[in-house]
Amino acid sequence: MKREKIQPTTGSLAKLVQGKIISGKSDTFIKNFGSIDRAQSDEITFLANKKYLPLLKDTKASAVLSPDIPEIKWLSVPPDLTVILVDNPDLAFSKVVEYFLPSEKTFPAGIHKKALIAGGVKLGKKVSVHAFAVIEKGTVIADGTIIYPNVYIGSSAKIGKNCLIYPNVVIREQSVIGDNVIIHSGTVIGSDGFGYTMAQGKRVKIPQRGNVIIEDDVEIGANVTIDRARFGSTIIRKGVKIDNLVHIAHNVEIGENSLLIAQVVIAGSARIGKNVILAGQSGVDGHIQIGDNVKVGAKAGVMKNIPPNSMVAGFPARPYRQHLKELSLLNKLPELIKRLKH
Amino acid sequence: MKREKIQPTTGSLAKLVQGKIISGKSDTFIKNFGSIDRAQSDEITFLANKKYLPLLKDTKASAVLSPDIPEIKWLSVPPDLTVILVDNPDLAFSKVVEYFLPSEKTFPAGIHKKALIAGGVKLGKKVSVHAFAVIEKGTVIADGTIIYPNVYIGSSAKIGKNCLIYPNVVIREQSVIGDNVIIHSGTVIGSDGFGYTMAQGKRVKIPQRGNVIIEDDVEIGANVTIDRARFGSTIIRKGVKIDNLVHIAHNVEIGENSLLIAQVVIAGSARIGKNVILAGQSGVDGHIQIGDNVKVGAKAGVMKNIPPNSMVAGFPARPYRQHLKELSLLNKLPELIKRLKH
Amino acid sequence: MKREKIQPTTGSLAKLVQGKIISGKSDTFIKNFGSIDRAQSDEITFLANKKYLPLLKDTKASAVLSPDIPEIKWLSVPPDLTVILVDNPDLAFSKVVEYFLPSEKTFPAGIHKKALIAGGVKLGKKVSVHAFAVIEKGTVIADGTIIYPNVYIGSSAKIGKNCLIYPNVVIREQSVIGDNVIIHSGTVIGSDGFGYTMAQGKRVKIPQRGNVIIEDDVEIGANVTIDRARFGSTIIRKGVKIDNLVHIAHNVEIGENSLLIAQVVIAGSARIGKNVILAGQSGVDGHIQIGDNVKVGAKAGVMKNIPPNSMVAGFPARPYRQHLKELSLLNKLPELIKRLKH
Repeated sequence: MKREKIQPTTGSLAKLVQGKIISGKSDTFIKNFGSIDRAQSDEITFLANKKYLPLLKDTKASAVLSPDIPEIKWLSVPPDLTVILVDNPDLAFSKVVEYFLPSEKTFPAGIHKKALIAGGVKLGKKVSVHAFAVIEKGTVIADGTIIYPNVYIGSSAKIGKNCLIYPNVVIREQSVIGDNVIIHSGTVIGSDGFGYTMAQGKRVKIPQRGNVIIEDDVEIGANVTIDRARFGSTIIRKGVKIDNLVHIAHNVEIGENSLLIAQVVIAGSARIGKNVILAGQSGVDGHIQIGDNVKVGAKAGVMKNIPPNSMVAGFPARPYRQHLKELSLLNKLPELIKRLKH
Repeated sequence: MKREKIQPTTGSLAKLVQGKIISGKSDTFIKNFGSIDRAQSDEITFLANKKYLPLLKDTKASAVLSPDIPEIKWLSVPPDLTVILVDNPDLAFSKVVEYFLPSEKTFPAGIHKKALIAGGVKLGKKVSVHAFAVIEKGTVIADGTIIYPNVYIGSSAKIGKNCLIYPNVVIREQSVIGDNVIIHSGTVIGSDGFGYTMAQGKRVKIPQRGNVIIEDDVEIGANVTIDRARFGSTIIRKGVKIDNLVHIAHNVEIGENSLLIAQVVIAGSARIGKNVILAGQSGVDGHIQIGDNVKVGAKAGVMKNIPPNSMVAGFPARPYRQHLKELSLLNKLPELIKRLKH
Repeated sequence: MKREKIQPTTGSLAKLVQGKIISGKSDTFIKNFGSIDRAQSDEITFLANKKYLPLLKDTKASAVLSPDIPEIKWLSVPPDLTVILVDNPDLAFSKVVEYFLPSEKTFPAGIHKKALIAGGVKLGKKVSVHAFAVIEKGTVIADGTIIYPNVYIGSSAKIGKNCLIYPNVVIREQSVIGDNVIIHSGTVIGSDGFGYTMAQGKRVKIPQRGNVIIEDDVEIGANVTIDRARFGSTIIRKGVKIDNLVHIAHNVEIGENSLLIAQVVIAGSARIGKNVILAGQSGVDGHIQIGDNVKVGAKAGVMKNIPPNSMVAGFPARPYRQHLKELSLLNKLPELIKRLKH
């Protein structure tokens, strides 16, 4: 990837992020980047959230990337602070970070001599497989994917293009993974679903013979577990982002662009819609259906189907307003009871 | 294992699962298996749960494995659907799946030349140790057990017969594991218990010198942690099944055939009885005793001993009926308060 | 480490733990150690908690390490039980355990020929790197640290003295780890923070270019995840102890000597004070500040800043007394409503 050689002045950075300078200078030299409260002189910062506006008047930074909000025009900022308006400060700042700290490919393409690749494995162009990785027979890995050390990929799996499979990931047999998928360390894809049936007073294992399908542009955090289906597939649709230590059971389907925050549990055969947000430590019971655009609060437990475009919280999960009202009444209960006794 | 060569007709499949055809034909040719809603013509499906009965009238499947319930005899099913009655449809369907998709041993018996086996390790017959697995000195592994790649087994451990130890499992020193145990990827057995004592204003580590004992027929999911005892043993009794991301602390004992669903936490020295079910994301406090046959609801937090044969829910966990009543009152509270004010 | 050769009599053990014999004999021969209820004759036990006092009258042990509490002097203990008073029975018992079961270094110092060390890695004296461990370029590891098998350490990381890095740990690039740090198996340090921004209707990954800093004397359990900062550092201060399956998000800071019990989640940019205790399965929302010496109850969800020296519980977390009162009122509600209707 060729990088345009631009001078790191406020003006050139503004150009890099397609921003507009509304106050300050365009020729201030910028050396680095930092947060509003920690950035030094000669550094650039950004305003991601209105609640940090008060910090701007004391920042030592020489430049700030700001959204186009009325407050930024009225606020009295330090006289030598260059204010650059951008559409999306998060995105703009990411470009600045990438400018100052360009990411480097860790490994050259090719198969490390200490990796173990079984016969019949097909590798695309510029695939990188590092030391002590194991790839079993019949597996196919497309162009540009990087397999870090100590990764295990079972037989007859398919991995798409430009994926990053971090150290110590396990991808079991027959898993299918799309393009541009990132899987962080310690995550296990395709372990057996949790299913037993009672026979003669004993729990007997139900064979788990399906697989896991992960579509394009999915990112999966560290130490996540996604179980294979009993038969058929556990499916993670395009653009889903999964945080650390999440558990997704057998035969679950997660709709496009949904977000699962840390330690979420989705029980077997549940179906989650598109653009759903499941906050941290929330859980969804087995066979439940959650509609598109639903938001589930932190620690909530979803025990019933949830219609699209709604927001639920608490355990068992109920409409967010009702949850708030109940909490507020619970708060008032001691006073209320005192008055009643009176 | 020799497989009887039977013709995959509805009749031969009925024979395979020891079932009885009550309607339809015994000579329909079956090519594959599927779920009630997705199975195609020439496929066999099963009815695991009464709630799926309504789906039967629209199924395209050619055969269904059904329990012997009155409804199945009265229901109007498609005329060309062969209905096979069985004692346990889950079990019967598992046999059908195994028939169409026989499981294959991934690895040949023997020690891969890239595995590392310390001196003094004793391996039984037909043990398979794959690449980059490490087995430390003094460890004993019995007949037929498979150790997948990147597994670490510490010194002086004992592993029984016919176990499956999936990739990237860690089993620390002195652990004792029975026969027919399955441990899924990323799980850690025998890490140090979490124990400190204050000395001169600092937390000082209490040595954790006990071990973990796992009895026969236990299955442990992915990324589970089971800590070794401070002294003595953390014990998982026969037939216990543990789902993904569960944490079991030092000196805990789990009784026979208990079931721990995803993300359960059992704190130090707790004792769980036989046939207990701990639903997802529930937790048990330290030193707590839970009697036999207890059911603990999802997300419940058990802070007191629980007598046998009971059912608890909520936080802190209370009898299930009381929990339901409180939830129902909480629901009615807004209306109640409105009337009171009136 | 040289060990003074002392005779294992009650007298010599009393000397070892700097204790004082207040009853019984100083010349009883002790062969082993055990818990109060399981120790046999010729064994030594300890009293860690007053609630186990009643067990003392039936113990078969020949000696007990007890704190200097009035009850121990009044209690009628078996006539042949030697009672040894100590400042801290936990600590004293740890010394006794270490005496009978001295811990052994598993590995010799040196680099195993099956480890993979990149060029430019600097290793201190008596460092041990075991088989199938991978250490990337530019990383520095100080004296006496042990790297177990299958560990991955990324580029430009720094690891201090006398650390124990257990099998299958992943430490990503640029992580900085202090002295005497213990990291248990399966833990992932420095995986990407969970951050996205919406651009043209898609979630775009925000580069995570900071690192993780772990100070001296920290212990981290098994299958924990600690994410690297977006920029700057995620910081774990001196003496923090973290239990299994905990998640710490990007840019979090945990103050000195804090304790995080199993399955805690700390969301992005939260700041936790010193000596804070977060009980099992509790969670802290993003950007929250928790003061020094705060105790957070099991399963609590902290959604607001918490002042120092306080105790909170429930979801959302509220002062502990208020939480208890609300629970008690909830218990009484059925009776109250019955009386009201009357």
